[in-house]
Amino acid sequence: MPTFPFSAIVAQDEMRQALLIAAIDPAVGGVLVFGDRGTGKSTAIRALAALLPPMRAVSGCPYQCDPEAPAALCPHCASVPGARKKSERKPVPVVDLPLGATEDRVVGTLDLERALGAGIKAFEPGLLARANRGFLYIDEVNLLEDHLVDLLLDVAASGVNTVEREGLSLRHPARFVLVGSGNPEEGELRPQLLDRFGLACEVATPRDIPTRIAVVRARDAYERDPEGFCAAHAREEGKVRKKIVAARERLAEVAVPDAALERAAALCLALGTDGLRGELTLMRTARALAALDGDAAVTDDHLRRIAPAALRHRLRRNPLDESGSTARVERALAEVFA
Amino acid sequence: MPTFPFSAIVAQDEMRQALLIAAIDPAVGGVLVFGDRGTGKSTAIRALAALLPPMRAVSGCPYQCDPEAPAALCPHCASVPGARKKSERKPVPVVDLPLGATEDRVVGTLDLERALGAGIKAFEPGLLARANRGFLYIDEVNLLEDHLVDLLLDVAASGVNTVEREGLSLRHPARFVLVGSGNPEEGELRPQLLDRFGLACEVATPRDIPTRIAVVRARDAYERDPEGFCAAHAREEGKVRKKIVAARERLAEVAVPDAALERAAALCLALGTDGLRGELTLMRTARALAALDGDAAVTDDHLRRIAPAALRHRLRRNPLDESGSTARVERALAEVFA
Amino acid sequence: MPTFPFSAIVAQDEMRQALLIAAIDPAVGGVLVFGDRGTGKSTAIRALAALLPPMRAVSGCPYQCDPEAPAALCPHCASVPGARKKSERKPVPVVDLPLGATEDRVVGTLDLERALGAGIKAFEPGLLARANRGFLYIDEVNLLEDHLVDLLLDVAASGVNTVEREGLSLRHPARFVLVGSGNPEEGELRPQLLDRFGLACEVATPRDIPTRIAVVRARDAYERDPEGFCAAHAREEGKVRKKIVAARERLAEVAVPDAALERAAALCLALGTDGLRGELTLMRTARALAALDGDAAVTDDHLRRIAPAALRHRLRRNPLDESGSTARVERALAEVFA
Amino acid sequence: MPTFPFSAIVAQDEMRQALLIAAIDPAVGGVLVFGDRGTGKSTAIRALAALLPPMRAVSGCPYQCDPEAPAALCPHCASVPGARKKSERKPVPVVDLPLGATEDRVVGTLDLERALGAGIKAFEPGLLARANRGFLYIDEVNLLEDHLVDLLLDVAASGVNTVEREGLSLRHPARFVLVGSGNPEEGELRPQLLDRFGLACEVATPRDIPTRIAVVRARDAYERDPEGFCAAHAREEGKVRKKIVAARERLAEVAVPDAALERAAALCLALGTDGLRGELTLMRTARALAALDGDAAVTDDHLRRIAPAALRHRLRRNPLDESGSTARVERALAEVFA
Amino acid sequence: MPTFPFSAIVAQDEMRQALLIAAIDPAVGGVLVFGDRGTGKSTAIRALAALLPPMRAVSGCPYQCDPEAPAALCPHCASVPGARKKSERKPVPVVDLPLGATEDRVVGTLDLERALGAGIKAFEPGLLARANRGFLYIDEVNLLEDHLVDLLLDVAASGVNTVEREGLSLRHPARFVLVGSGNPEEGELRPQLLDRFGLACEVATPRDIPTRIAVVRARDAYERDPEGFCAAHAREEGKVRKKIVAARERLAEVAVPDAALERAAALCLALGTDGLRGELTLMRTARALAALDGDAAVTDDHLRRIAPAALRHRLRRNPLDESGSTARVERALAEVFA
Amino acid sequence: MPTFPFSAIVAQDEMRQALLIAAIDPAVGGVLVFGDRGTGKSTAIRALAALLPPMRAVSGCPYQCDPEAPAALCPHCASVPGARKKSERKPVPVVDLPLGATEDRVVGTLDLERALGAGIKAFEPGLLARANRGFLYIDEVNLLEDHLVDLLLDVAASGVNTVEREGLSLRHPARFVLVGSGNPEEGELRPQLLDRFGLACEVATPRDIPTRIAVVRARDAYERDPEGFCAAHAREEGKVRKKIVAARERLAEVAVPDAALERAAALCLALGTDGLRGELTLMRTARALAALDGDAAVTDDHLRRIAPAALRHRLRRNPLDESGSTARVERALAEVFA
Repeated sequence: MPTFPFSAIVAQDEMRQALLIAAIDPAVGGVLVFGDRGTGKSTAIRALAALLPPMRAVSGCPYQCDPEAPAALCPHCASVPGARKKSERKPVPVVDLPLGATEDRVVGTLDLERALGAGIKAFEPGLLARANRGFLYIDEVNLLEDHLVDLLLDVAASGVNTVEREGLSLRHPARFVLVGSGNPEEGELRPQLLDRFGLACEVATPRDIPTRIAVVRARDAYERDPEGFCAAHAREEGKVRKKIVAARERLAEVAVPDAALERAAALCLALGTDGLRGELTLMRTARALAALDGDAAVTDDHLRRIAPAALRHRLRRNPLDESGSTARVERALAEVFA
Repeated sequence: MPTFPFSAIVAQDEMRQALLIAAIDPAVGGVLVFGDRGTGKSTAIRALAALLPPMRAVSGCPYQCDPEAPAALCPHCASVPGARKKSERKPVPVVDLPLGATEDRVVGTLDLERALGAGIKAFEPGLLARANRGFLYIDEVNLLEDHLVDLLLDVAASGVNTVEREGLSLRHPARFVLVGSGNPEEGELRPQLLDRFGLACEVATPRDIPTRIAVVRARDAYERDPEGFCAAHAREEGKVRKKIVAARERLAEVAVPDAALERAAALCLALGTDGLRGELTLMRTARALAALDGDAAVTDDHLRRIAPAALRHRLRRNPLDESGSTARVERALAEVFA
Repeated sequence: MPTFPFSAIVAQDEMRQALLIAAIDPAVGGVLVFGDRGTGKSTAIRALAALLPPMRAVSGCPYQCDPEAPAALCPHCASVPGARKKSERKPVPVVDLPLGATEDRVVGTLDLERALGAGIKAFEPGLLARANRGFLYIDEVNLLEDHLVDLLLDVAASGVNTVEREGLSLRHPARFVLVGSGNPEEGELRPQLLDRFGLACEVATPRDIPTRIAVVRARDAYERDPEGFCAAHAREEGKVRKKIVAARERLAEVAVPDAALERAAALCLALGTDGLRGELTLMRTARALAALDGDAAVTDDHLRRIAPAALRHRLRRNPLDESGSTARVERALAEVFA
Repeated sequence: MPTFPFSAIVAQDEMRQALLIAAIDPAVGGVLVFGDRGTGKSTAIRALAALLPPMRAVSGCPYQCDPEAPAALCPHCASVPGARKKSERKPVPVVDLPLGATEDRVVGTLDLERALGAGIKAFEPGLLARANRGFLYIDEVNLLEDHLVDLLLDVAASGVNTVEREGLSLRHPARFVLVGSGNPEEGELRPQLLDRFGLACEVATPRDIPTRIAVVRARDAYERDPEGFCAAHAREEGKVRKKIVAARERLAEVAVPDAALERAAALCLALGTDGLRGELTLMRTARALAALDGDAAVTDDHLRRIAPAALRHRLRRNPLDESGSTARVERALAEVFA
Repeated sequence: MPTFPFSAIVAQDEMRQALLIAAIDPAVGGVLVFGDRGTGKSTAIRALAALLPPMRAVSGCPYQCDPEAPAALCPHCASVPGARKKSERKPVPVVDLPLGATEDRVVGTLDLERALGAGIKAFEPGLLARANRGFLYIDEVNLLEDHLVDLLLDVAASGVNTVEREGLSLRHPARFVLVGSGNPEEGELRPQLLDRFGLACEVATPRDIPTRIAVVRARDAYERDPEGFCAAHAREEGKVRKKIVAARERLAEVAVPDAALERAAALCLALGTDGLRGELTLMRTARALAALDGDAAVTDDHLRRIAPAALRHRLRRNPLDESGSTARVERALAEVFA
Repeated sequence: MPTFPFSAIVAQDEMRQALLIAAIDPAVGGVLVFGDRGTGKSTAIRALAALLPPMRAVSGCPYQCDPEAPAALCPHCASVPGARKKSERKPVPVVDLPLGATEDRVVGTLDLERALGAGIKAFEPGLLARANRGFLYIDEVNLLEDHLVDLLLDVAASGVNTVEREGLSLRHPARFVLVGSGNPEEGELRPQLLDRFGLACEVATPRDIPTRIAVVRARDAYERDPEGFCAAHAREEGKVRKKIVAARERLAEVAVPDAALERAAALCLALGTDGLRGELTLMRTARALAALDGDAAVTDDHLRRIAPAALRHRLRRNPLDESGSTARVERALAEVFA
């Protein structure tokens, strides 16, 4: 059954913007999506991955190594001279991390004794291997154990998964965008962890009837005739794909003027965020947004549009200010950009 | 001992309607039955399965694959050319999931080392394999661990059970209707999980003496002479079976007019349900109900009859509204359909 | 040391009546005995078993299969033609279920790997096997884990123990009367479980001195000279045994008139019991009592005498009615049978 | 180092009386000793065991079977004709049950697989085997897990230890007096368990200086010269030993008149003890006391002297009566024996 | 690096006195040291052990058996005739018991199966073996599990470590002084356990500047030039060593007059300590102190000096007396010795 | 990717000073860094290690033994004569201790049975081996289990890791500086543990915009062109490296005058710190600071500058003084140095 098209998603603009930014510059860090159930979070991430151009990967490599990125090859691919690596086109992977997954299943298992005894390979790649160069999706990330979230954010930040057991050590590339969804009513993440996600967006059930009917109609049309529905959206999908490819190429050229950095700092100071990850993220995501827009430099408009998603999860609890974090970011924006 | 006949069930109309809809369109999602103990929940599900026409299954296949559904074959059946598969008639399975069941027992076990060592098959199918094309029944589902309910709903939604262990991966068809029963006094399900069940119905002890005596008499008659009792209901059973078969065939043709969708949206908005699963379910179950009635299109009447079961488990707690969820759905129905 | 004779038990009429009914019709469900410690609960159940006529069992069968009940044979006995089965007389078993017993010990263990490795039988029958055709006694059942009580009631209701492990499956007959004793001060059973016991009786320390002295005298006489004491009661034991045998034969002929069923329903409605298990049990236990009395049909008298034991454990907590459950049943009896 | 002599124990009359009664009639049930630390509880039990005449035991038998008690032989001794059993004199055993002991260590281990694999005996006797015909001492019994106390009281009551594992079953004699000590400030026993101990006595630190000095002097003298100290008490020890031996022989002849039984019942009624174990224990321990005194029948005096130890642990909490349990027994004695 | 010299310890007189007494008569029981962190508790115990004259031990014996104490030999040494045992001089051991130590590591492991399988010795001695004839030091004893403290005190009291597993049994000498340190702010010991320690002393940070500077200077001098520092204290160390050796020889001759025992009893009565361990310890430690002082008999002065350490941990909580336990002992001393 | 240069770190003076002191005299004990997230704690420690001159290590030694420090060689290196050890230059190691690390992984595993069975080495060095002569970094040390922190501080203090399992014992050098970071909002360390860290410094987000922009600019410049950024800081790095090397050589010559010790004692008394670790640390860290400054003796200025980091974690909670610990140290400084 073909995947639901990204361009057929109705509403949920902030989530779509955040996913596009992560697709353009995976270095901005993971994306958190918090909000109502049944709002198509999982559908959107799968749709984005299906939309991205297929990638060229070394044939048979369990990490789908990029034959043209010699610095990020797995140990096996690195040992083969570049010219001799066979490669093939593969879709961008989306890997689901199930709630009960053990650390072994996530990072892979490295078991010397078993290797010696049963004559099988010492390392069995895990979910992180399969997610390399793609997306790792965690539904209800707020229910995952802290140490696993921690581990995932570490790997996502460094792009490398290191497994060490009994004196053996193995490193393999694991560059992926971590996407976590959750319902704030069912448990919170520690501030330490929240801060390490790049963007955090909110999704909500649409409240106007025409939008609701549009969603249900689209879903019904898709489920009754998946092939026909996708064919009808093929052209729109192509446009989005081209915008992403162009933005990726343009990204390195986008300038970040001094004034933008000052704005970012003033905004974070006004909000009292801890540390400087807020500012770094603002700068990076505004740059990616400018690239998506085809702009040559970051402007106030880019900062303004991305600030809620880049900052709302970095606010301290303020017992005297009962407004939600989005409202607090908006207020600071109004103040700083006045 | 032959099964108690579905057509001999006294009262409990809502539960019977929900089970019939699930038998017509298994895609509507699982059925939750909440209510008093000793009201024949387990009897009803077994009765429905026994009533359904036997299915044709590949001989010896542990997933009882349908030889005529090539898209849903297990890996082994898929590797045998269609013409050469032997098949046989089998009753629709009803599998009980015991409360203490481990995940391994549910999904099956995949154990490479043991396979190598003991010379036995690496995969032992679990309860999900046995439930393929039938019903999976969980008594007191509210006492089951969340991650198992989650897993079951995922498999039920996708129709596929994927088992991954130590680098091995196996997928087999697991299309079944999940039926959960429970007593709301003994623990609740998380809203996240409730929302993923298609229908939720309530059963209660009948309060008029003639109905009660009818139930006891029927049960007594059945237990004293099962064969005689079933023979006496054979004709009635045949009628219900025919209605189901006809509805299954008619389902694809039933129309869902715009007005029906608007009604559904208005109803969900009035109730403030999160996300759009409520509307999707309303549409699908009303369509199945129309098919059962032999109607060509969904009407207000179908929506009205199925709305309580389709929506009552999707309401948020409203601290200002102490009325039960059924009463709240009824009130919204009165308002929207006025 | 010979068992204390059933007919020498002083007082505790309700418990003795409940045990006799279970001996006549094991299908009425388990018996719960709640009350003071040191009132001879364990003595009574052992005494009843010793009193029952020995049963004929297939020689060497770990389930002591009845050679004359072909429908309830274990897999091994079923594979041997009837005429060739050797059999012997065996006492009716009473099996104690110790509080710390594991599920494996209760249901038996089925261990393929061990079977392959050590050359021993894959299935080791458990306590349920030994209890087949007899009694399973659980002291302080309120301290047992819920899932074990659940399992025991399921097996007791179906008469079959099914063990499934690693793809192996074994079924053997396990028809027994479950007798649980407990002290309500030390923990309660969930209403779900209470409802599945057939009868619940209360025992208390006798409060008049002559009865107390009679009990102590009897116990002392028995402990000083067990053989002599039993010889002195042999004739009385024989009478009780004959009454039970006669009641078992008469049971199928006892009529349950419409009026009796209406009374039962009215009584349960007055008490507000959930579901209809109360009425079904009332009907069945009154029928067994009529058989014990040698009566041809169930009368109000039988219902009245058995109602407290059949219903007292099925009442909902009523915060406005502080009277004990026995008092509430008595009041409803007075009302309905007025 | 020789054991501290029983006859050199200063004060603590109630504890010494209880231990002597248990030595005369082990069937009275275990002895609980509650009270201050450092009051010589452990010393007293060891002293009593050392005082008792050595017993004749089958050579090499791990249960030290009595060659002259054919009804209580272990399976191995039972299989050897009586005339051919070699025997030897052994001291009466005192076995300490350490707080962290596992059930396996207590009852022994029965391990078929290990037996097959390693060529060693399937059953390794546990602490219960070593305690046969002697004493099992549990310091701080209130800290032991309930199921172990339960198990110990069951074995002590029946005199048989039954071990069942994986279809194997082994029974061996385990007749012992259970002695538990504890400090009521550090946790309580469940009433269910308390009731199953025969006697419960209280010990306290002596409050008059001469007694205290006598205790310290005795202890000091013993520790400085154990051999000399024991020699000095040898004659006194001999007297006590003879009194015990004589009482054991006389026990079967002691009469329990009707009046005594009535007194016992009246006393228990006045105290409202649950069940009739209180009366049974009163009768048995008064009989043993009469035997120790050399009396031909139980009198009020015997009942009066033993009643506090026989009943104080069987009283229900009475929220309106704040007096301690000993005071309540004394008050009832004054009333009934007035 | 040589150990810090005992004679160079500044202040902390009570702790030093307690350790010297334990070195003279190890039978007085363990020493508890409670108080501020960073006050040199661990340094003092190591210093004392290094000061004691080396002991003669059987060569190669893991329990460093004393070749001249035939009653306390390990099973292996006991099997070799005395004249043929080779011996060597060894320092008095100080063994640290780490907080997370398992019972196996403490008592040693006895593993029959492993012994049979791997051809290695069945018993691996534990920390208790290594502590024989020396000191066992537990930092933060209040954080140790109760059953381990219990076990250690039992072994320390009996001087024998008995290990029993699977029917095997091994006993070896384990005479050591248990020294526990802790911080009362971080958890308490049960009164039962406190009572079994012989002495309990308090240490505190010195409050006058010259003493503090002396401590820091000494520590600095020692750390900059350990060898030179120790050489400078060698003569003082020799004096203390001689005092200990002399006191050990004199101990058996020290008299305990009646008057001293009466004082001890009066003191304990005044304080209301449970049991008589307080008086026994007072007598023994005062005797050791007299031996250290070179006195022929115990006097009031000895009792007075040792009473706080011997009694402060045996007081009951007195809700009406808020003063600390040391103040309560001082008050009782003033009263009794007035 | 080259490491971010130490000399390019903007602000965070106290943390940089503490790390430099630990690099000059590792004996001052571990460094705790508490404060806001995202302030570059982990970057700083890695930067310092990269800055230090590479060390000469025995080739192939898993503990990177120093060929010129014969007293601190591992067992294997110690067994090879000095002249024959091959060595090589290695960077100073920084080892991360992950939150979920087991004790085995930290200290290494010693497994006799496995060694015998699988023919592999009995000891697998752990993280402590890899950290020898370098830094062990624990992010969020307040979330680590107490016993692990304890163990790490013990090893860090002694410079030796001792592993004992099943009678085997192995010691290897493990001299490292423990650096722990954490957020006081997410859990506290026990005072016992806090006291054992040498220095504790606080980091906070800079509050002035120019500094913030400088940090973000530096980070951005580094991430866009790591090689170029490092080249630009190479000369500054060389200066810092020379200062450290000079300070290490000068350290032994720095004098600590009496007046300085008195000041330190007065300061600790004024703050009421427990024990004397505060004074010892003040003396040692002031000495290292003097060495870094190139001064010949410790002065008030050195004490003043290092006192907050050396003492703030050793203060008792003072319920009457609500000011933070840094303010309390400053106040005491003002008082004592007035």
